[in-house]
Amino acid sequence: MLQTTLPLLTRRGDTIRYDREHGVVLVLDRRCYPHDTVFVRCSDLDAVATAITDMIVQGGPPLAYVAGYGLALVARLSAHERRETQRAALQHAATLLRATRPTADDLHAVVGHALHVAETALAQGMPAETAIADGVDAQVARGDTVAERCGRHAAHLIPDGAAILTHCFAGAALNWMLYTAACEQGKTIQLYPTETRPYLQGARLTSHQAQQLGLKVTLLTDNMPGHCFQRGLFQVYVTAADRIAMDGSIANKVGTYQYAVLAARHQVPFYVLGYDGPDPATPDAAAIPIEERNPSEVLMCAGVRTAPEGIGAFYPAFDVTPSELITAISTDQGVFAPADIYTYDQHAP
Amino acid sequence: MLQTTLPLLTRRGDTIRYDREHGVVLVLDRRCYPHDTVFVRCSDLDAVATAITDMIVQGGPPLAYVAGYGLALVARLSAHERRETQRAALQHAATLLRATRPTADDLHAVVGHALHVAETALAQGMPAETAIADGVDAQVARGDTVAERCGRHAAHLIPDGAAILTHCFAGAALNWMLYTAACEQGKTIQLYPTETRPYLQGARLTSHQAQQLGLKVTLLTDNMPGHCFQRGLFQVYVTAADRIAMDGSIANKVGTYQYAVLAARHQVPFYVLGYDGPDPATPDAAAIPIEERNPSEVLMCAGVRTAPEGIGAFYPAFDVTPSELITAISTDQGVFAPADIYTYDQHAP
Repeated sequence: MLQTTLPLLTRRGDTIRYDREHGVVLVLDRRCYPHDTVFVRCSDLDAVATAITDMIVQGGPPLAYVAGYGLALVARLSAHERRETQRAALQHAATLLRATRPTADDLHAVVGHALHVAETALAQGMPAETAIADGVDAQVARGDTVAERCGRHAAHLIPDGAAILTHCFAGAALNWMLYTAACEQGKTIQLYPTETRPYLQGARLTSHQAQQLGLKVTLLTDNMPGHCFQRGLFQVYVTAADRIAMDGSIANKVGTYQYAVLAARHQVPFYVLGYDGPDPATPDAAAIPIEERNPSEVLMCAGVRTAPEGIGAFYPAFDVTPSELITAISTDQGVFAPADIYTYDQHAP
Repeated sequence: MLQTTLPLLTRRGDTIRYDREHGVVLVLDRRCYPHDTVFVRCSDLDAVATAITDMIVQGGPPLAYVAGYGLALVARLSAHERRETQRAALQHAATLLRATRPTADDLHAVVGHALHVAETALAQGMPAETAIADGVDAQVARGDTVAERCGRHAAHLIPDGAAILTHCFAGAALNWMLYTAACEQGKTIQLYPTETRPYLQGARLTSHQAQQLGLKVTLLTDNMPGHCFQRGLFQVYVTAADRIAMDGSIANKVGTYQYAVLAARHQVPFYVLGYDGPDPATPDAAAIPIEERNPSEVLMCAGVRTAPEGIGAFYPAFDVTPSELITAISTDQGVFAPADIYTYDQHAP
């Protein structure tokens, strides 16, 4: 039964919030959602940084908003200090927060913006906490609009009857794409998420969001897409991008590249949910740092040790897909060929 | 430190045995090995069939030997019956055992041979149990020789300094290949196993066998090989094959195909450990049935439920890799180009 309401992970304000009364950043714990719906309360900088590095929050924009609210929290906790001391505390926090996850560009943009807002407020003798929190609130609202527009544009790319392969959790724009295509445009669509090891974002988040929309969901392990392409099961492959370079290449959850290679081999279009477009500071894929996470995460699954003691592991969290493997990039400003993504206007409304 | 002894899964008689005194098929439980080394005792046909379908034993030849010993057990349990009744019991058991896992050809060969041996013994008024057990013992010994020769031929294909990507557990021939290359030929090699969801054969079995040989082992999740190919981490890709068709295409654990596509794209050779060669009754890939297992296995990992309730799943256990993606197939008779594998002589010593 198709639904008329959007799932929980569609609007970021429903899962991330700064409580100005108590000075707490509230973050939905995505590690146990949807099994448990628990909010983690972060009341100092370390807790905010840990929420990001330990993937309590996940996805480029959401984790960036948490970092932004983290700066509001630092401003509150240092509000009684002299202006220079508070400025130094904010700069230290910004440096620490920027280093938590290097690949996605949203983190740098939101932290940079929050710091700028804080400096302006401090220069005017205004409270930095309020200025930052207002600024991040506005970015969350803007981000929600970006996600909706990006997902709605992408919905027009999905043919009626399509089975869609997706990897990891492509975020609010995926929810909007599915909602628009299935619930508004009346298309019969179904979703094949990969489980997305080691964190199982596909098994937990993507499958649940699509299920909440009333779609048919068929989970795959990460070694199955190739065979499913062979059998002609997919009409479309869709992912998000943690960063888009100006040459149309993207960085996204590790595995995105291998399925893009298979999609191209089997003549299945690959559409990227590109949210607010490329990072002007990233000319090409070579300029994107690929985060390597703690290899011990690969040796565990769902909290259970899988490999024997003494085995090594490698955990590159992202990979790069070159532009020639991408059919189109959907953004809030419309759909772009990868080669044209550099024409996306960062300053458009 | 390199080892001079071979790991437990090298010689099949160490993990599968028919106890003639008590009428029990003993099977190492590969679901919990190497964490626990437990032997399951099968004392009737249902227990033997369950050991195969539930993957207590895994891999084409090992599971075929368990089925063969299962027929010896059926012969014992029906030894007091009239000859025709015993014959019917054996034929019923053979049909049931053949149906347990449809993709690998070893099962059909070993069960067919055991049935033939039994018929001959019964016609001569001899005990079928002993005849079958002797016959399967001989096949196990022959299979061990095949695995050693196959692995030793393959070792010559591995360059010094190679990092080897492998998927699932390629069995005794993999152990022999690694042992010969590293411990006898003195090559510096290292292994990157995929974890191989949903059963984690790579995380548990492959990683442990290579570790026992003293090799450096770096575990990957199944979504990482593409990125590692991009970074040039692998010099060789090696897997087994559950069935080889006469046209040089293979069926193997699902995922084998997608990594073969990536190996070809990145100019990395793909070598198949082909044991005793192609199945003469299988002309091409289209003739290979792909087993679909219970989708609920995809919704769990290491005994823990990963996906929300109500989510569907798909579990094709194998996929097909076309011959043009395979560089060479190593067998007990030597190394073949895939296009020449039809010249393998089933009747060679």
